[in-house]
Amino acid sequence: MAAVAEATTGWWLLLVLSAAELAVAHHPQPPNIVLLLMDDMGWGDLGVNGEPSRETPNLDRMAAEGMLFPNFYSANPLCSPSRAALLTGRLPIRNGFYTSSAHARNAYTPQEIVGGIPDSEHLLPELLKEAGYTSKIVGKWHLGHRPQFHPLRHGFDEWFGSPNCHFGPYDNRAKPNIPVYRDWEMVGRFYEEFPINLKTGEANLTQLYLQEALDFIERQHTRQRPFFLYWAIDATHAPVYASRPFLGTSQRGRYGDAIREIDDSVGKILSHLRGLGLEKNTLVFFTSDNGAALISAPEQGGSNGPFLCGKQTTFEGGMREPAIAWWPGHIAAGQVSHQLGSIMDLFTTSLSLAGLKPPSDRVIDGLDLLPTMLQGQIMDRPIFYYRGNTLMAVTLGQHKAHFWTWTNSWEEFRQGINFCPGQNVSGVTTHTQEEHTELPLIFHLGRDPGERFPLSFASAEYQDVLDRTTQVVRQHQEALVPGQPQLNVCNQAVMNWAPPGCEKLGKCLTPPESVPEKCSWPH
Amino acid sequence: MAAVAEATTGWWLLLVLSAAELAVAHHPQPPNIVLLLMDDMGWGDLGVNGEPSRETPNLDRMAAEGMLFPNFYSANPLCSPSRAALLTGRLPIRNGFYTSSAHARNAYTPQEIVGGIPDSEHLLPELLKEAGYTSKIVGKWHLGHRPQFHPLRHGFDEWFGSPNCHFGPYDNRAKPNIPVYRDWEMVGRFYEEFPINLKTGEANLTQLYLQEALDFIERQHTRQRPFFLYWAIDATHAPVYASRPFLGTSQRGRYGDAIREIDDSVGKILSHLRGLGLEKNTLVFFTSDNGAALISAPEQGGSNGPFLCGKQTTFEGGMREPAIAWWPGHIAAGQVSHQLGSIMDLFTTSLSLAGLKPPSDRVIDGLDLLPTMLQGQIMDRPIFYYRGNTLMAVTLGQHKAHFWTWTNSWEEFRQGINFCPGQNVSGVTTHTQEEHTELPLIFHLGRDPGERFPLSFASAEYQDVLDRTTQVVRQHQEALVPGQPQLNVCNQAVMNWAPPGCEKLGKCLTPPESVPEKCSWPH
Repeated sequence: MAAVAEATTGWWLLLVLSAAELAVAHHPQPPNIVLLLMDDMGWGDLGVNGEPSRETPNLDRMAAEGMLFPNFYSANPLCSPSRAALLTGRLPIRNGFYTSSAHARNAYTPQEIVGGIPDSEHLLPELLKEAGYTSKIVGKWHLGHRPQFHPLRHGFDEWFGSPNCHFGPYDNRAKPNIPVYRDWEMVGRFYEEFPINLKTGEANLTQLYLQEALDFIERQHTRQRPFFLYWAIDATHAPVYASRPFLGTSQRGRYGDAIREIDDSVGKILSHLRGLGLEKNTLVFFTSDNGAALISAPEQGGSNGPFLCGKQTTFEGGMREPAIAWWPGHIAAGQVSHQLGSIMDLFTTSLSLAGLKPPSDRVIDGLDLLPTMLQGQIMDRPIFYYRGNTLMAVTLGQHKAHFWTWTNSWEEFRQGINFCPGQNVSGVTTHTQEEHTELPLIFHLGRDPGERFPLSFASAEYQDVLDRTTQVVRQHQEALVPGQPQLNVCNQAVMNWAPPGCEKLGKCLTPPESVPEKCSWPH
Repeated sequence: MAAVAEATTGWWLLLVLSAAELAVAHHPQPPNIVLLLMDDMGWGDLGVNGEPSRETPNLDRMAAEGMLFPNFYSANPLCSPSRAALLTGRLPIRNGFYTSSAHARNAYTPQEIVGGIPDSEHLLPELLKEAGYTSKIVGKWHLGHRPQFHPLRHGFDEWFGSPNCHFGPYDNRAKPNIPVYRDWEMVGRFYEEFPINLKTGEANLTQLYLQEALDFIERQHTRQRPFFLYWAIDATHAPVYASRPFLGTSQRGRYGDAIREIDDSVGKILSHLRGLGLEKNTLVFFTSDNGAALISAPEQGGSNGPFLCGKQTTFEGGMREPAIAWWPGHIAAGQVSHQLGSIMDLFTTSLSLAGLKPPSDRVIDGLDLLPTMLQGQIMDRPIFYYRGNTLMAVTLGQHKAHFWTWTNSWEEFRQGINFCPGQNVSGVTTHTQEEHTELPLIFHLGRDPGERFPLSFASAEYQDVLDRTTQVVRQHQEALVPGQPQLNVCNQAVMNWAPPGCEKLGKCLTPPESVPEKCSWPH
């Protein structure tokens, strides 16, 4: 098995090496890297991807000045695993961001989670240090909130943001409000020092996050040091919010207000880079962590355009993401690439830009996309769709094969929890976990991006795809060494009762008794 | 009632008059008009509207150089009534392109139809003659195929194309193949002189139609006379076709091949106008007759993007259309207008461009869109969604109210005829005709373009919309004088047995006995 793993990673490493050399040759001063990661924003939320209200002029311009990737995927239909994959370049099943407590269950990092990013994983900012980068995370971390998982222990130099989602408000008795950190210490909590008005949707967090980004860029520019900015904002995650100047301005309601503020902010970040003369030395990449949360639509959820279902599912709506690369003078303007891209590629591509090699002692799932961005190359590669510990589907070229189909349980569905509102593809959007490992459901995503018309089992096309798919999946599964699952155990005692710095603010709370228990992951 | 009709049309006429004066003032030589009307092409088929394969670079460029209308509607979810509405500026219920033989039934002009465009209707090319225009229709006419309905009897000066859809092949015994006309006479039939290979999808018709367009433009340019070109091609109507150089080139299969050839052709038409120096004196408008025919998907049907259902329905997928206006030097580049537009507006806008007034003795439903195109004005106006003789829905601003919901009958649906594949909105995509005239289902199309989440009857928003809707609908219905229905009677004897010119080709067939009967319109 180890030999197979070697063989599997071999050609990727070759690609990575050659691209890294290329990067070094072209850019003796390594370029800055800005990753703009959205939260629950859908593929269909951008004007350039056909959102009918067309309220993203800055993002649309970014695409017109750069490269649009219509076939770009997250590594998971849920926030935490997707973010862990981005920062490690590895599938959640490898980096531990999954649960093994039930079959095909989505798990993440709520306050009661015990696990988080293992020390054995090498995160992008940690590796970028070798090339002299200073790294900052602005916004949501989501890779664990206990002290050992702190982003500054995993390579980031600065942080302004929160460890978990901005859910709440809580009463600080059964559950504490989520802390907001500046670097090592908390500086307040959501709904307290950092208010979010659930009734009006008003919060100025995106403005704070924008200012943090602009300041960081300016400081690093002054220092003349390469930087990595990971701008992981969360205004489009329910409860969605926007600051006062944007509230009520969208044709799309409150969710649209959040989008408009984000679009405006992206425009300001790009302008700032231009203003400082950094645009030709900064790769900016815009994407999202998973599909739009259709359970929160229409007021608090976005759009997955023509794709099937949303967040929590391994249909296209759950994992195909808006994606734009921008690097004036390097990436030619107005391009569309049909490269199958993955959020994990941002890891490998960033290392390549920095002239670094990815770790050679482990499987890295991300590809270096520089040959795509700079020379328009298309590389053959599979996209794997996992839900927890289960490989649900794979895409090869234009074909997607589903080995398991599931939306959520009948029990949840009957309670009104619907990941596919208004959509129903018989035998596909199932409410029981349906196994198709022997005879997968296969769709042609070019002719049928909405996954509505499975290929006939009797067709030659089906047989050809089945043969190729089977081989790729067998290789993948034979070489796979799952990481220690991090998302199995929950404990009320690990919640954000007394984060570092709480004593200075007089905001330390007393944790309850420690009672570790199996987390409940209903879907 | 007449007084109400006067009052209703009054303000439109005022608008029309002022814009017409404006047009005359700005363009002493009336501009040429090119309407590019697609057949069953969906809103979501254009890259600029988010089609993931992004295979319409010429249309996307046309939008970037002109004005994109994301909220543009056909007048009916079916070909013939939509085309009759375009050329008369009037709803099908007024111009007679409907059936009264059953409630809410879609009717069109197959070979056995007895009716067609009444002489009492004034068609756009007929009116444009007063301003010296020469008019040509290339492609599908569809307003009746009996001699009295011939397009050259209704204002066109030239024709190359067919009176009905390119269905077939037929055996010329039970049914004749559809003729292709040049001007007054047929020059052959589909599947005979004008082959369509149903197996491979090969046909060179789009190339013929392109050449006809280019030649006509060049001839009129030489004559220095204003022209109206109505390019009503049909490659995206099932059975879809493309010429050999385009076959197999699309990521989207055969339907995509047809789109690619059309996109290429549109690029050539715009280049030709530029090459002749006509671009600043020619308004080009691109749209489609109804939504994509999802019953033919995925091989032979297109995409309605994020919208609900398709052709045959009065959901957005059935009637919202791709729409681009292009007039360099007049329409500023890169604009998006959220004006609610209608295919009927092309009638009024064209007259305005020509410095003409629309007929004052009848209700005209089309608005003059020049103030929108030239000055970005947004005009308040309703969009009415009819199915046959029944007002199914109305849109006012961002709100759409459904008075009747229906997709098709259970009987048809059980036979596999599905106008909403993969989509199912409970209580909305119904298979019985459901009346909601007292309490319409209301959607906010900005927040919910997919019509998945009806507003709560108890909300203040609902009540406000209901009040405004009720008033607009009452006015509309009180003033409405339905035209004589043209699509009630069918007769095998009226089929294209012996079109004019058949004798020269030796292609006259003997009609069967005349037996008029009620047409069957199942949905």
